[in-house]
Amino acid sequence: MSFLPGPYAAFLAFTGELKYIFVKKIEGVAMDNFTYHNPVKIVFGKGSISELKSLIKRDHKVMITYGGGSIKKNGVYDQVMETLKGRELVEFGGIEPNPEFETLMKGVEAAKKEKIDFLLAVGGGSVLDGAKFMAAAIFYKRKDPWEIVSRGFPLTAAVPVGAVMTLPATGSEMNGYAVISRRARGEKRAFGSPLSYPRFSILDPETTFSLPDRQVSNGIVDTFVHTTEQYLTVREGSPLQDRQAEAILKTLIEEAPKVRKSPHDYSVRANLMWCATQALNGLIGCGVPQDWATHMIGHELTAMHGLDHGQALAIVLPALLKYEKANKLEKLVQFGERIWNISEGSSEEKADKAIDKTVAFFHSLGVKTTLKDYNIGPDGFEKTGSTFDERNMALGEKGNIKSKEVVDILKLCLG
Amino acid sequence: MSFLPGPYAAFLAFTGELKYIFVKKIEGVAMDNFTYHNPVKIVFGKGSISELKSLIKRDHKVMITYGGGSIKKNGVYDQVMETLKGRELVEFGGIEPNPEFETLMKGVEAAKKEKIDFLLAVGGGSVLDGAKFMAAAIFYKRKDPWEIVSRGFPLTAAVPVGAVMTLPATGSEMNGYAVISRRARGEKRAFGSPLSYPRFSILDPETTFSLPDRQVSNGIVDTFVHTTEQYLTVREGSPLQDRQAEAILKTLIEEAPKVRKSPHDYSVRANLMWCATQALNGLIGCGVPQDWATHMIGHELTAMHGLDHGQALAIVLPALLKYEKANKLEKLVQFGERIWNISEGSSEEKADKAIDKTVAFFHSLGVKTTLKDYNIGPDGFEKTGSTFDERNMALGEKGNIKSKEVVDILKLCLG
Repeated sequence: MSFLPGPYAAFLAFTGELKYIFVKKIEGVAMDNFTYHNPVKIVFGKGSISELKSLIKRDHKVMITYGGGSIKKNGVYDQVMETLKGRELVEFGGIEPNPEFETLMKGVEAAKKEKIDFLLAVGGGSVLDGAKFMAAAIFYKRKDPWEIVSRGFPLTAAVPVGAVMTLPATGSEMNGYAVISRRARGEKRAFGSPLSYPRFSILDPETTFSLPDRQVSNGIVDTFVHTTEQYLTVREGSPLQDRQAEAILKTLIEEAPKVRKSPHDYSVRANLMWCATQALNGLIGCGVPQDWATHMIGHELTAMHGLDHGQALAIVLPALLKYEKANKLEKLVQFGERIWNISEGSSEEKADKAIDKTVAFFHSLGVKTTLKDYNIGPDGFEKTGSTFDERNMALGEKGNIKSKEVVDILKLCLG
Repeated sequence: MSFLPGPYAAFLAFTGELKYIFVKKIEGVAMDNFTYHNPVKIVFGKGSISELKSLIKRDHKVMITYGGGSIKKNGVYDQVMETLKGRELVEFGGIEPNPEFETLMKGVEAAKKEKIDFLLAVGGGSVLDGAKFMAAAIFYKRKDPWEIVSRGFPLTAAVPVGAVMTLPATGSEMNGYAVISRRARGEKRAFGSPLSYPRFSILDPETTFSLPDRQVSNGIVDTFVHTTEQYLTVREGSPLQDRQAEAILKTLIEEAPKVRKSPHDYSVRANLMWCATQALNGLIGCGVPQDWATHMIGHELTAMHGLDHGQALAIVLPALLKYEKANKLEKLVQFGERIWNISEGSSEEKADKAIDKTVAFFHSLGVKTTLKDYNIGPDGFEKTGSTFDERNMALGEKGNIKSKEVVDILKLCLG
């Protein structure tokens, strides 16, 4: 999967039948070989939705996709419609958080019937991920498009997708990657392809002014965890990538309290939005080991218990870091010293304090960090663990986290 | 010029007839609107030259361009030829540092005659910049291709370019920008276009093992200055971009002494190479004010006195920072605190110390920092200053540096 930026290759690999674990190609302490290619055009700033008219060709027949309708309340829908006045447009609304396969397949049918040749996703990561899936499924030749996610079959064609992103969180606006759910089977799965990069993403921080606190907090957690998954691993010789990751973490920690106090502060919204994009556009993952276990286990908690994506991550990350403390010790110390300004104590103590500080940060956002907080007990842990074995997946930067270890981490999630 | 990443737009603007100075569109302390689109595919790591065979289509007729022949001594030429065995290839060597218009026009004639449809630049930034110019000039319809640089005419077509980059410095491997010299007129000018992005750039740190110390040091200075030009300006609300810039500066400062001690340390070479690319791929310039005065004045010193590009920059930067201390004070303090760990003293004192530390860093690389060190006196300062007025150019993030101020800065360069 070398055509994809690091994180997608690694992340993806855990979701299909690929058996990717981190394999070091370069001897000694040096970054690994990598390929980076990210052709997404980012149009960032106040009033940028009006640029849609030059970004989408006039002769395209466009399907505008969106979620539960918040874009109709906050003025984003009107701005899009005003800009695309006179174009041939079709709408497809109702895409839910953790976009559902059954819903998206209705969109696919409608798009085929209407001969759509451009998909414009207007909303958060779920809407955009849904559009990426639809874009792929429209051209999928085999019988069951679920295979795109369940088996990771490479795409050969996709309808072009553009985005007006209204929720900083997933980074989907600048990557070729999507996560789709199938509630009937209790499954939440990822796929990725170079054909799934948006042609453009418009990021206007003003569209985020009206987001509910819960979504803002979940988005900050998601961004934070995307960053730690490419940073809190074994220590290798990647000082630039480390500091690029730390740049995101420090900025999040600095801006988060401000957004809760001043939700209409443009600068704070702009910084959070740009952090989210930078956390998952592949850059900080170039040539470094990665550990996507938090997302993979978090997806299972969401699929089983209906927890928000950000809620699930805030529970799993601290548990994972405690469980993997020995493997990640050097990097946890660096994280403690550079991000949380911890200067006292042994390496062990610094690592513990860094994890405590991370938990406190999530609490400061109003996000809980244990399953107990949601009255969820240990039922189903064994089944969750076994799904990773069934999918032949070994998590963690060393590939050491299999079903047994997943169960142990879930036990630490109880609180 | 909104199609170009920030730095090229700003930098470029000073080189043609555009009258760009930094204009803030967003009220208050927030990052500005921007467009970011960088489609270059980076293939990074040991042994990556062998990927050329899949990166260039078999049916292309390729012109391989290079410089003075060091690639024939260090094995890079052989690796390229081995990988492209059996292809239709033409060679064009002899591109000099600060690539010369007259030389490049010979390449253009040869490429037209041979009906070349791909240019592969193998070497440092000068070779790649030269290839970008040739790629544009081959298709240039008007009489005088020098207009591409002298007048900044937008390109309508260019031959595709790929690169095997052997010298970390200019960042040309991941931008759409080039600097060309015309010695007969004492001119050194830049141009940029979205058509000038390389299709791919191969970065194998091992190709840099045999670089002479002087080129390594010059490259570190160039990278450092690219970064400060997008960072040491007025303080605006761009905490993430600031830290992304600081990530590069800190890594350079940390790695520079190692490369002098252990020139064959792969990890150090890889980190320096990735720093150079990240410093001028547009990322750290997103939405922030920029001040390209150091490069613009440095180009004049190179054109007039034949100083290496890095040598000229190491002279101009300290002088510029002293001259602009009041305008840049807040950012200089941040630079002092975060990069040089200066915690004592007034803001003024911190700024002074930060400039002193920067000078000491250049000295530690063996690079001199005054004109006096090269026995260059004040002759020609007035003429240099007046070229900026003639080109209707105002330098600095506030557009306050015109001919008079350029002369004042040059006087500070004397030492």
